[in-house]
Formats: sequence, structure tokens, C-alpha cells
Amino acid sequence: MNLTIKPVFFKDEKLYILDQSKLPFEEVYLEIDSLETAIEAIAKLKVRGAPAIGIAAAYAFVIGLKNALLMNSKEILTISAEVKRKLEKSRPTAVNLFNALNRMESKLKSLVASGLCHEEIYRKLIEEADQIYAEDLRASQEIFRRFLELFKEVEEPLNVLTHCNTGALATSGLGTALGAIRALHETGKVKTVFATETRPLLQGSRLTVWELQKYGIDHRLIVDSAAAFLMSEGLIDLVVVGADRVARNGDTANKIGTLALAISANHFKVPFIVVCPSSTFDMSLENGKQIPIEYRGCDEINSIRGQKVSSADTNCLNPAFDITPAELITAIVSEKEVLKFKELPW
Amino acid sequence: MNLTIKPVFFKDEKLYILDQSKLPFEEVYLEIDSLETAIEAIAKLKVRGAPAIGIAAAYAFVIGLKNALLMNSKEILTISAEVKRKLEKSRPTAVNLFNALNRMESKLKSLVASGLCHEEIYRKLIEEADQIYAEDLRASQEIFRRFLELFKEVEEPLNVLTHCNTGALATSGLGTALGAIRALHETGKVKTVFATETRPLLQGSRLTVWELQKYGIDHRLIVDSAAAFLMSEGLIDLVVVGADRVARNGDTANKIGTLALAISANHFKVPFIVVCPSSTFDMSLENGKQIPIEYRGCDEINSIRGQKVSSADTNCLNPAFDITPAELITAIVSEKEVLKFKELPW
Repeated sequence: MNLTIKPVFFKDEKLYILDQSKLPFEEVYLEIDSLETAIEAIAKLKVRGAPAIGIAAAYAFVIGLKNALLMNSKEILTISAEVKRKLEKSRPTAVNLFNALNRMESKLKSLVASGLCHEEIYRKLIEEADQIYAEDLRASQEIFRRFLELFKEVEEPLNVLTHCNTGALATSGLGTALGAIRALHETGKVKTVFATETRPLLQGSRLTVWELQKYGIDHRLIVDSAAAFLMSEGLIDLVVVGADRVARNGDTANKIGTLALAISANHFKVPFIVVCPSSTFDMSLENGKQIPIEYRGCDEINSIRGQKVSSADTNCLNPAFDITPAELITAIVSEKEVLKFKELPW
Repeated sequence: MNLTIKPVFFKDEKLYILDQSKLPFEEVYLEIDSLETAIEAIAKLKVRGAPAIGIAAAYAFVIGLKNALLMNSKEILTISAEVKRKLEKSRPTAVNLFNALNRMESKLKSLVASGLCHEEIYRKLIEEADQIYAEDLRASQEIFRRFLELFKEVEEPLNVLTHCNTGALATSGLGTALGAIRALHETGKVKTVFATETRPLLQGSRLTVWELQKYGIDHRLIVDSAAAFLMSEGLIDLVVVGADRVARNGDTANKIGTLALAISANHFKVPFIVVCPSSTFDMSLENGKQIPIEYRGCDEINSIRGQKVSSADTNCLNPAFDITPAELITAIVSEKEVLKFKELPW
């Protein structure tokens, strides 16, 4: 599969982020060389999608440490703890952020302990972040291979529904759920992709549609709440979504609206598949009740792309994610395994 | 209950419509004295809500016939058939439109047959439309009485979720589902109203929130797809929605998204009540499969209040309504009866 889109990469000591808040109207890269700008880019969703956040955070960790590397070992570790803490506060739900930062911190500790010179530490930290990036690319490819195996018996092309954006933009560049749909499309087994617009931030309208157009995949944009009706009309054969954090038992935190889709899919016996890299699993959590849910500002509902749509100034409730219990999920596909909770209909 | 808002009324041979497409930012009345303007107001959702559409159509019928009343009886009936046909095409789903027009046409036929002079026919047609208006007001009051009886046993105030706008604005002025919630609030049994924004046209953000603020009812605006999550968190005790057409078996056509709410409510055992005047029933239809669903333009999803939100120009699917099967409904409350399909939890 082609790497058509590069949402995040590191070059010449700077982090480059394709500003997703401006898509699809402008394709602009942010050039980031300070921790504060990196944190803002993550918090303001200029980079988004659980794997992409993890990658951006790994590079941001290096950027945040750059000056500290002139100090002594103890000071480096104090500052790195501070950098990590700040980055961890930028988004609370996607576990990839925490996984990437823990990994970077461990690496730093072992590098410091090994007594390497600071230029060497800096270089090796970049290599570690590059590694996280490369592993995500490889994970996508392996995910697609496992995903496609589930469809070996399928003969007629399927109508697939997806939610939010889980494509190239949400990852190092190949995608999770949308990447898997694209891979299935390349085998001729996808007829039409129904993309939910994904309120409040319209990742579906803005990002998924933009990607589907780039890939030349037939698609229809729908409002989130139309999904159940399309299922009732027999128009949806399959739902494929990503994940922001998966607990040990398979309970899955993902973009708000995922739970509603899973309940409807279950009601109409439409297979509901979660696709995510293993870095999205949080084995420290027994079940989904322990996953923290991010509540975001009222302005995301009250106004749409700067345009006021309601007279309500403050009275909103804006959970950004919800938890889909494993019992509503047909299968979770990662690069390491396929957790199959239910039989597929084919 | 006070008639705080007058969304549609007839005065001095003109139909006045509070332009709902401009709310909540401007409160402007359209002054309508031609059939074409009336049809445009209905088709473009300047007046909306099943009962309000019925009332507007009845007056529009009179306006459309005014000039024809100078002709002979046969010509009057030919033109009235044409006027009726044009009005029927303005919106396909809400049956109140068809019911009101059938009633106006029958009245016209009997008036013509009785050989009355044309001024007299005109006057009596206005009286008939006034009658439809007055009956809707009375129906609301009787609906509220029956609705409140369902809550006699309730002691703690409830968190109520509603969809779209079914308040004053959708009717002659007292509302259906939102009116019933307001009535329940007046008895002290409503804590907070969760209003879905109701994509694509944001009747919740624009209209329901505006009404709730006028009534001083505590409320939270949410995106449509957050409802299931709030139910999973135990934050919703009751769902109350309106209807655009109800088939003989109780299957209910209502704003897109209603089906998804009903499936989630059912999943979480939250009572799901439909509130509508008996004029919303279509006894000619055995079940919901026979209710025609209006598909509207892509621009409603692609752009929000004039602002483009997607690069997709044409690839949308925009059903404006969906069908909730009776088996997912707890009760349907009209002014004539309460159809109870399931037991209430209190």
C-alpha cells in the first residue's frame, strides 16, 4: 500500500505535523521546535488519532529535552519527568501517548545510566522515536494482513461504515481501521464506504472524506445518527472503527458515537470490528470502566468552525469518547492477534 | 401553560410564520400572501414540525384558493385540487400536512355543494383552518394531561433526553414532546433536559435550546451520538420524542436519529415515549415500512449554516427521517389515548 499521506515526521531536529484542523481546505505543515508548540498541537487536535499522537509525543519528548542535555544526569532526569508530565496532560484518553512517553523515558534512563555522552543520548532518543514511527508503519501492514484474513470467504463487495478518522492521518501514514478498509478495497471487496461526519469535530467530513477521495474509494458522507437507519434498511454489511484505548477484557474507548454504532450494529446483527495497533491496549486496566474519558469545551458544540449555531453559551456536555463493551464487539484486530468475540456471518 | 411563542398564525388574510431558519439569532416573521411563498416556507423548513406544517398548509390552501373563488364551482374544485397537489409535494413525511389538506378539501367540496356564495366559502375555509389550529392547541393540553398521568408514581426529578424540536415552534404553540417535558417540569419532576443538537439542521441547538432558555428549564446540549454514552453512565432516566407519522401498528417516523436513540434506550432499559397529536397517525398504513422517507440535499451535511465543512461536493446520503418500530417504544401518548407497549419502570 502506498504511503500517500505523511501526517507527522521528524526532520533536521524539527517535528512536522500536517495541521489537521485546517484540512481539507488547506494542506499546511506545522514546523515544531519547542515543547510548548508541540503540546498545543496535540491539545488543539492539530495532530490527532491515537497512534499519531503517540508518535508526535515521542518526538516532542526529544525536543523538550534538547536543552536539558547540556546539564548533568540528575538534572536531565528531573527535567525529563517534567516534560513527560506536561505531555501526558495534553490528551487524557489515547493510551498511545502514555505508552510512547513511558518508552522514551525508559530509554533515556538506560542511556543516562550507560554513561553515554549527551550528543549520543540525543541521537539515540531520536532513533527510539523513529523506531516508534517505523513500528507503527509495520504494525499497520501486519494489521491489514490479519484483517484481510477475516474476509477470505467474502465474495460480494461489502458496504462498510466507519466513524471518525482512522486513516493515514491518525497514524504514521497507513492508518488503522480506515487503512484496513482501504486494504480490503484493494482486494475488490468494498463497494461503498459510509463515513459518519463525526460530530463535534467533523473528522469524518473533513478528514475521512478527504482520504477516501485521495484513494478513489466510492463513499457517502452521513450524519452520525443516520447509521442505525441505514442498518435497518440493510445498507450496511460491516462496521469498522479504530480505538483510543482498549482494556484487558476488550472494552474499547473510541470517539464519541462508537458505542451507539456498536449497539445498533448488534441490534441489526451487523459485524462490528475494532482495528488498532497493540500499542492501543492498556493491559493495566481490567475493563473499560477504568478508562478516563476526556470532556471537552462547549464551544465545540455551540459553534462549528467559528460559526455560532446555538444561543446556549455554556450549557453543553461534551464527552469526546465513549466505552464500547467487548460484548458488543465482533473482533479486535491488532498486529499481534485477532481477538474474536463473535462469529462472522460469512 | 402559557402560550409564550406563536410560531404560525393567520391575520388579515395573511399567514404569518416565525422564520425558524433564522432562529435563535433573529426573531423574524414571514408575511405570506401567495401559495408559492407558503410552499417555499414549508419546503425550506422556515416552518417545521409536523403539527405546525399541517396548520401552515391549511392556511396556505385558503391563500392559494383566494383568486379561484371568483370562478365557477367546477373551476374552483379543479384549482383546489392543483393547490392541494402542490402543497402535498412540499414535504413528504409528516402526515399532518396531508390530513390538514384532505380536511380542507372536503370542507371546500361540501361548501361548494351547499351553494354558498364565494365570500362565505372563503370565510368558512378560514374558520376551518382556525379550527385545525385551535384543535392542535387543545390536543397539546390533553396530551400533557395524559402524559403527566404516566408519572404519578415518580417522586425524584428525572433527567430527560429529547431529540429535534417538538416544542412550541413545531406546533400551534404549546408543543408535543417538548411541551410534555415542560408540563412535567412544571410539576417539579424534571431535573435536566438533555437536548440533542439534531444534525443536520441543528433544530436542537437552534430551537430546543432557545425554547428551554425561554422556559427556564435546566438543560445540556449534546451531540446526537453522545446519547448512548450518557445512558450507559446512568445519566438519562427517560427519552421523550415527537413523531412525523405513526402507522397503525405504532411504528413511528421521526427525525433521523430517533431510531438510534430508541435502540440505545432499549439496550439500557430507559423508557422511550413518543408524544404526538392523533393527527400524526396514519391509519391507512399497516406498518412503518409503508411510510415514505424524505431524502434531502447534500448541502445540509456538507456545509453548516453556509460554511463548508467537507471537501465532498456530492457524495452524501441524507435521509431526514427514520422509522422506529413499535417494539422499541414504551408508549405513544396522543390526546385521544395512551398506547402502552411496555411497562414503565416506576
